Amino acid sequence: MMLPSPKINRNMSTQPLSPFRTPEQREAERSAKREAVLQAAVDLFNERGFSSTSLDDVAARLGVTKPVIYHYLGSKEQVLLECLGRGMAHLEEAVLKARAEHGRGADRLRAFLIRYAEVNMEPFGRCVVLTSDHELSADGARQFRAMKRRIDEALRTMIAEGSADGSIRGGDPGLASAALAGSLNWIPRWQDPEGALSPEAVAERLVDILMHGMLVG
Amino acid sequence: MMLPSPKINRNMSTQPLSPFRTPEQREAERSAKREAVLQAAVDLFNERGFSSTSLDDVAARLGVTKPVIYHYLGSKEQVLLECLGRGMAHLEEAVLKARAEHGRGADRLRAFLIRYAEVNMEPFGRCVVLTSDHELSADGARQFRAMKRRIDEALRTMIAEGSADGSIRGGDPGLASAALAGSLNWIPRWQDPEGALSPEAVAERLVDILMHGMLVG
Repeated sequence: MMLPSPKINRNMSTQPLSPFRTPEQREAERSAKREAVLQAAVDLFNERGFSSTSLDDVAARLGVTKPVIYHYLGSKEQVLLECLGRGMAHLEEAVLKARAEHGRGADRLRAFLIRYAEVNMEPFGRCVVLTSDHELSADGARQFRAMKRRIDEALRTMIAEGSADGSIRGGDPGLASAALAGSLNWIPRWQDPEGALSPEAVAERLVDILMHGMLVG
Repeated sequence: MMLPSPKINRNMSTQPLSPFRTPEQREAERSAKREAVLQAAVDLFNERGFSSTSLDDVAARLGVTKPVIYHYLGSKEQVLLECLGRGMAHLEEAVLKARAEHGRGADRLRAFLIRYAEVNMEPFGRCVVLTSDHELSADGARQFRAMKRRIDEALRTMIAEGSADGSIRGGDPGLASAALAGSLNWIPRWQDPEGALSPEAVAERLVDILMHGMLVG
């Protein structure tokens, strides 16, 4: 663990206590509050659906009022877009990590799919796959589609590379990417976060089916 | 083609024209109107989402008023449940047809998955996979889940049978069924009904990936 920084934790040091917070403390507090709002919002969106959740519900869960939510993150759609952006950032990280894998295309694809499946079992990733374009405004939907397109292109590229190096069966990378992503995008609709299998085990077994297929031999 | 029944088409016979319709004609008209309402509703639900569609929208598309819709099919949720029931009936037929296939478990599974994929490209099947439980009332969601459970159980049974006769790789049939259904349930989110590939070709290629996997050899 890191030692507490004397600057940020001035009130906990041996200096006289000050009732005034430092700019760093104020910033850390703002950031923690923003994070709490996002976490409460993503959980509610995932449980009830975006359309059936109001900012009042989010506020109530945190014991604050709607203007407080608005102050930290803006409108309900802005809150959702922030959640979607988080989920997408996790997928972008998964792309970078898979790209750095040694081995053949099939190894990179497998590494990416495993992480992709895991992200879909985390709150922000669940939110990405549980959100339909038509729940957003035209502009919000455009932003969301652009984010999804980047991930889809990365997945198609991985499939095409594996096909080129002979480790993956040929065919239309667009169709294959839709088949794979679809299977993993459905996870939030059936996976039980409290279930016996860990998210890692679920991811491993699903990706195994997608890589090897259902047929024997 | 069947010849027109003289009873139903009394007005088109050589008898004097009557401005009064027969009970059969009234029944046929009622049924045609009900069908038109269902078709308009399912298209709107699929385009805009259930939450963003009102019975007024459905009525407007047919050039009638909301009470007319209500008269033929009831509340918006009753209209949706009727659409979901139709889609589910198509999947139940697919189960029966696959069960009648000769061959091994893998052959029956493949036949079912192909038809399952095709149903997901038809209006009522699209509606089934585009509808979330939380868009329905508690009672509606219960009915919907019960219908989905029957299909899921049939799919698990097919997988278990293929696993028992050695044509399908072993493992957890529940997880495999979720992997397969998920991949095919995602189709309505990317497939272009006006695209170059026919629904049959899309179904064939996707199921090929699921049966054989991505890996070479």
